[in-house]
Amino acid sequence: MPSETTPGQRLMARLDEFARFTDEPGKLTRLYLSPAHRDAAKRYIEWCRATGLNARIDASGNVWARYEGKKPGAAALMLGSHIDTVRDAGRYDGNLGALAALSVVEELVANNERFDFAVEIVAFGDEEGVRFPTTLTGSRAYAGLFLRSSLEQKDADGVSMREALIDFGCEPEAVATLRGRGVAAFVELHIEQGPVLESENLAIGIVSAINGATRFHAQVEGVAGHAGAVPMNLRADALTAAAEMVLMIEARAAGEDDLVATVGRLIVEPNAVNVIPGEVRFAIDIRSPSNIQRTRAVVDISKQLDAIAARRKVKLTLVHTHEAAAYVCDAGVVAGLKASVARLGVPVRVLPSGAGHDTMVMGSLCPAGMLFLRCKGGVSHSPAESITVEDAEIGLAALMDFVRHFKPAA
Amino acid sequence: MPSETTPGQRLMARLDEFARFTDEPGKLTRLYLSPAHRDAAKRYIEWCRATGLNARIDASGNVWARYEGKKPGAAALMLGSHIDTVRDAGRYDGNLGALAALSVVEELVANNERFDFAVEIVAFGDEEGVRFPTTLTGSRAYAGLFLRSSLEQKDADGVSMREALIDFGCEPEAVATLRGRGVAAFVELHIEQGPVLESENLAIGIVSAINGATRFHAQVEGVAGHAGAVPMNLRADALTAAAEMVLMIEARAAGEDDLVATVGRLIVEPNAVNVIPGEVRFAIDIRSPSNIQRTRAVVDISKQLDAIAARRKVKLTLVHTHEAAAYVCDAGVVAGLKASVARLGVPVRVLPSGAGHDTMVMGSLCPAGMLFLRCKGGVSHSPAESITVEDAEIGLAALMDFVRHFKPAA
Repeated sequence: MPSETTPGQRLMARLDEFARFTDEPGKLTRLYLSPAHRDAAKRYIEWCRATGLNARIDASGNVWARYEGKKPGAAALMLGSHIDTVRDAGRYDGNLGALAALSVVEELVANNERFDFAVEIVAFGDEEGVRFPTTLTGSRAYAGLFLRSSLEQKDADGVSMREALIDFGCEPEAVATLRGRGVAAFVELHIEQGPVLESENLAIGIVSAINGATRFHAQVEGVAGHAGAVPMNLRADALTAAAEMVLMIEARAAGEDDLVATVGRLIVEPNAVNVIPGEVRFAIDIRSPSNIQRTRAVVDISKQLDAIAARRKVKLTLVHTHEAAAYVCDAGVVAGLKASVARLGVPVRVLPSGAGHDTMVMGSLCPAGMLFLRCKGGVSHSPAESITVEDAEIGLAALMDFVRHFKPAA
Repeated sequence: MPSETTPGQRLMARLDEFARFTDEPGKLTRLYLSPAHRDAAKRYIEWCRATGLNARIDASGNVWARYEGKKPGAAALMLGSHIDTVRDAGRYDGNLGALAALSVVEELVANNERFDFAVEIVAFGDEEGVRFPTTLTGSRAYAGLFLRSSLEQKDADGVSMREALIDFGCEPEAVATLRGRGVAAFVELHIEQGPVLESENLAIGIVSAINGATRFHAQVEGVAGHAGAVPMNLRADALTAAAEMVLMIEARAAGEDDLVATVGRLIVEPNAVNVIPGEVRFAIDIRSPSNIQRTRAVVDISKQLDAIAARRKVKLTLVHTHEAAAYVCDAGVVAGLKASVARLGVPVRVLPSGAGHDTMVMGSLCPAGMLFLRCKGGVSHSPAESITVEDAEIGLAALMDFVRHFKPAA
């Protein structure tokens, strides 16, 4: 590569090349343990070897490499993210952090910089959970949280995770016995997947916490009827009741910073132009970086849903379908990332993550934290995902600065 | 039949027997020109003949019979309704009016009552429009409004109306040349298909007008996004915008008597639990017995939809998909029906019809009007459709009284 290229340019070129590893020609789809995943893992290992690192694939399919510190066997600062994608994905979600980790180590090797700690890099094999029902398999396995029973789950073609691991060249029975050792901290660079940084003209942010989430399935039963023949005052319209609920949920979340609530899925029955809806089913997703804030919102929303149903004389059935606690990023890691961003001379913006990430799993193994990079329009999980080379440069510089100032806890 | 049975009991027994003519065993489904329609038409003709009437099937499949007046060839008062049904139907919608007409004539024959006018009865072959795209084929043909081009439309199996008419034993080319002659008035007894009479403890009502209708297809385009990662103040959620529109439409209609507005169909995209809806499409159905009232509501709703879309920064596309003017029932027929109901000693309740009926088509041929009979829960187009024998008795008595007091216009 010509010497005048910058680290950010090299990273962007590699992200473009990496995007060619796909299970669906013409799109970027790279599912856990698929042929595209194997090809991407091989390429990642080649890049590591070209830098002098002896990379390997662990029992769950994660690619892992270690750059020793001044003394071999020291505790490690780990950098990385995942290299699986959703279907018809963008090229930055996950891959940015995995390849940025490699860029950092390459620069350390080039400068022969060594620290009192080792630097490890990782490309987790599954975060998105598209192929199998579970998500975050890579970081769960690495953090020692993999459940052996997960091996029996099957993909859409009936292939079990056990079989897929064997095909990939892994040893299924070893996955549940994995557990990273000597990891002093984990830091992940990831695109924001939201519009906050862009709306504030900022390239980078430090993640304060990863949102906890509560989900409900709601069923509203009214009375179907002829759209012409039933006067307004004699209706029990399930859709107008649901519409009032949707607006209440929106208003409740809009009243507080960091709280979000979404009705993303809604089904009307019988869904005919000339029939008053008799039933509506919808999903409610409530998230916050604070478990207390989320719990209060859940209780309020639940009470208000009941009140609307009673006033409109429809029957409401709420089923609690999902609960995940918030992960508050490690205070020491957050402080270090803030100091690094400040030293780059850019504004220090701390923000929560609405989406789940490997960082929240790694947080159970070691102190963990994240950097968010601005993405165009806040768009992710789409071929329209986009970042700039200037922002990539800032992301790499912040990671490098963090490494150079990192002090493992005693 | 034992002499102690009442006309209402005999009518109810016949409606039960008639419900056995179905295209789907275990349900009542009787589509236009189907084998079940042919069997039902044959049975209707047999009943007519048993009464001494020479019934026949016209070119469009309607069954028609005539009971002469004092002088042969006099103008006729026509009674009737349709004998096709929706899929998995109730046994009263349409069939009630067709068989009640027969009951009236049977009583006239039994009493040898003759008038200065003839009485004709009709069982229209298609009102529901389930088999072919067009509706009201029977009354349209009878009223001289059938379009020859309709012969080429096809059912779900690819059978054209032309072919189906030939299979039924009709002459397709003659349908467009049909036109009832010498009809002095048309009166239809029909279940209400709404809950108004039941809610007021009334057995019978007189229809003032048949609602006109305006329909729109609305498309709301917002911005899809991650349900966790996009703060509430940076969203353009297509579903919350649509929910506000649905509630506005409901409120606008609820503010005026007789006006109804319904969002019966609504589709969310991408409709995933964790994705802010990027697009919502829905249908708006606005009806009123007054064209002026409906037009004002349409204009108001359209303006308010635009205002909501602008405030919420979503793109709204409205497509006008359907327009039908209201039919105001003939004042003379309405006055006659009110007088008949009053003579029965029951309260005179005049109400609009939300649904379309053969009466609105027959109104283009002659003065026309309708009686509504209470139905349980306001339910129609369902096996749960139900009326009582006492109400059937009142319906028959009102029709009989109307016939006995009818005076053809000079």
